[in-house]
Amino acid sequence: MESAEVQLRILLDGVEQVLPAAEFEEKVTAAARGRRSPLRAKFGMDPTSPDVHIGHSVILRKLRAFQQLGHTAVLIIGGFTAQVGDPSGRSATRPRLTADEVAANARTYLDQVGRILLPERLEVVDNADWLAPMQMADVLRLMSQMTVARMLERQDFAARYSHGRPIAVSEFLYPLLQGQDSVEVRSDVELGGTDQTFNLLVGRDLQSAAGQPPQSVLTMPLLEGLDGSAKMSKTSGNTIGVGEPAHEMFGKAMSLRDELMVKYFRLATDVHPDEVDRVASGLAAGELHPGQTKRRLAREIVTLYHSAEAARQAEERFNTQFVDRSVPEDIPEFALGEQQEWFLPSLLHATGLCASTSEARRQTRAGAVRLDGETLADATATLARGDLAGRVLQVGKRRFVRLCA
Amino acid sequence: MESAEVQLRILLDGVEQVLPAAEFEEKVTAAARGRRSPLRAKFGMDPTSPDVHIGHSVILRKLRAFQQLGHTAVLIIGGFTAQVGDPSGRSATRPRLTADEVAANARTYLDQVGRILLPERLEVVDNADWLAPMQMADVLRLMSQMTVARMLERQDFAARYSHGRPIAVSEFLYPLLQGQDSVEVRSDVELGGTDQTFNLLVGRDLQSAAGQPPQSVLTMPLLEGLDGSAKMSKTSGNTIGVGEPAHEMFGKAMSLRDELMVKYFRLATDVHPDEVDRVASGLAAGELHPGQTKRRLAREIVTLYHSAEAARQAEERFNTQFVDRSVPEDIPEFALGEQQEWFLPSLLHATGLCASTSEARRQTRAGAVRLDGETLADATATLARGDLAGRVLQVGKRRFVRLCA
Repeated sequence: MESAEVQLRILLDGVEQVLPAAEFEEKVTAAARGRRSPLRAKFGMDPTSPDVHIGHSVILRKLRAFQQLGHTAVLIIGGFTAQVGDPSGRSATRPRLTADEVAANARTYLDQVGRILLPERLEVVDNADWLAPMQMADVLRLMSQMTVARMLERQDFAARYSHGRPIAVSEFLYPLLQGQDSVEVRSDVELGGTDQTFNLLVGRDLQSAAGQPPQSVLTMPLLEGLDGSAKMSKTSGNTIGVGEPAHEMFGKAMSLRDELMVKYFRLATDVHPDEVDRVASGLAAGELHPGQTKRRLAREIVTLYHSAEAARQAEERFNTQFVDRSVPEDIPEFALGEQQEWFLPSLLHATGLCASTSEARRQTRAGAVRLDGETLADATATLARGDLAGRVLQVGKRRFVRLCA
Repeated sequence: MESAEVQLRILLDGVEQVLPAAEFEEKVTAAARGRRSPLRAKFGMDPTSPDVHIGHSVILRKLRAFQQLGHTAVLIIGGFTAQVGDPSGRSATRPRLTADEVAANARTYLDQVGRILLPERLEVVDNADWLAPMQMADVLRLMSQMTVARMLERQDFAARYSHGRPIAVSEFLYPLLQGQDSVEVRSDVELGGTDQTFNLLVGRDLQSAAGQPPQSVLTMPLLEGLDGSAKMSKTSGNTIGVGEPAHEMFGKAMSLRDELMVKYFRLATDVHPDEVDRVASGLAAGELHPGQTKRRLAREIVTLYHSAEAARQAEERFNTQFVDRSVPEDIPEFALGEQQEWFLPSLLHATGLCASTSEARRQTRAGAVRLDGETLADATATLARGDLAGRVLQVGKRRFVRLCA
């Protein structure tokens, strides 16, 4: 096992907060010196959507760092908590998912998570196994361990309460369920985003009450979406799914807002922290070209989930699509959604490239409409989703949209 | 069945609030005219102490009125909710009872309640039967039906929250459990004290959500303790238990504060409302003697739970104890508690009759200590609880205490 100093440098890199710091250092030191067993590092993911994206990967990669240092990663798939809905950072009660939706999402998670975590020193558990069978008396015991006032100190609850936005009583249960998970898996440290701090600390309380040493809490910064918005989701097209094809990843990374480049280098790639510092100062001094730097970022991300060769090919394809045809690199995206076929005039209208379907027909007949550079002349064409995804749709010389799946 | 008009006059007598009034009248009218089945009138009692007292009887007697008119009384023994603890009107979280304590209390309840309710048209159920087996998912469904803001509108919660006194999250569950009871028993009307209004209205919401016609809510005024304090309990010695012996009841009724006499006539006896009005105006005009009126009240109460003959004997015994020996009627009480034997000097000190056990020994040796008029000369005597209960302990000519079990 690596020395405590090396371990702490790796584990604390990029971390926002460690609570309490001295306790965590003591645990790592004891493990490094063989005075205690390796740490059990917990991370819980609620399968509320079918996709694991680059935002989740910030913490999943930190979890892998624990594994690489000989500790155990305990990944909790929140089969039960996903049905409740984590209210953290929310301004309204989440719609509740059905057990079937949750189960379907959970199945897709494991495959995607496997691209990041190591298969050894990994425990994957579903909290429905212990939460669902709990009976009323257990729930009461859990609820009696927390006060209403402390719940309302949480920033998100406080804001909703003071603005008169409803909070369902059931939402108060969420942090307690997450804390109960820590008791069940006997975690030594729990990882989470900064918006999870409250929930993670509840775990400490419940473990202490159950006679366990309380877990340390390690929070990671939240990654903004590619467009800079706080909320990252596949449906808003502002994230990169860890299971996406290489060329999709590359194209999406290239649409990142310039000012987020350094943060993405730091949190979404394996580039060494010192090198990230050099990139940051190079960009600030104007010594590095932003476009070239973003290409490097895109290659790093693709390499992480696919390979260096896949990254090279993705860049080549990107060049054919954009550079060789003078398509600007930061054009808007359009998500094709679930629809299997698109009527060309409807698509041109839906993407905003044309103001109406009649303008769309006019432009098509005038030969102004192209897909990846090829003219589409049939104004009544119906195109399959598979033939559209990943391509650039263009009207005239200056209007472009990148179509994504 | 009596006419709707007669029924409403009886059922609404002494009632504080009916919510909503028109709906309740419509239900009673429909039942009286045979257009619907008799009403199911629900009352829930949590067996949090072993004794049913005259405060509970206000509502139990109203419940009997429903029975007498052909409706069904549904008495819920809160085997489960007693373990949670009703936070209504509380300024702090209640200590939680164990299942064993609750079960022991519940056994004593049925016997006492049987002195008031009719055995026919009576359903007695325990809410542990349906609440205890509820699983986490059911609890969540229940909790998602109520908002935090609405809970905090409750006066008692609001006061505790604004004064920084802790409210356990589990306390938010109580009104929902009580409401769930209404769904389970399909109640048409629920009775409760005025401090129960919020909980009773929650029952309406849950029934509506479950597709049932919502129960009407009928609240009764709260009876103050004999000493005028809001909280009535056997341990504070300010109430009359419905299972107590006749002479205890009589003596306790005589210790009632004068200004509460009319309220006790109205809520704790079967004296006709018109007659109570006459008593009230007679007392106000000075035409009725307060002491004589209180004796009548005491007789009425004893007659209700024992018999007219028992009331007569109790009054006779009271006369021997007090009047014949010029003992004032409103002397303080001392609760003997669970202790089976009392060392006389300790008792004299504990009751406050003597400032110390050495003063107690001096007074005893001086022949100044009497029990029901008999001199106690042995300063080292140990007296059995059974020989003390119900008697008057006296030091000198002016210091008295009535010892109660």
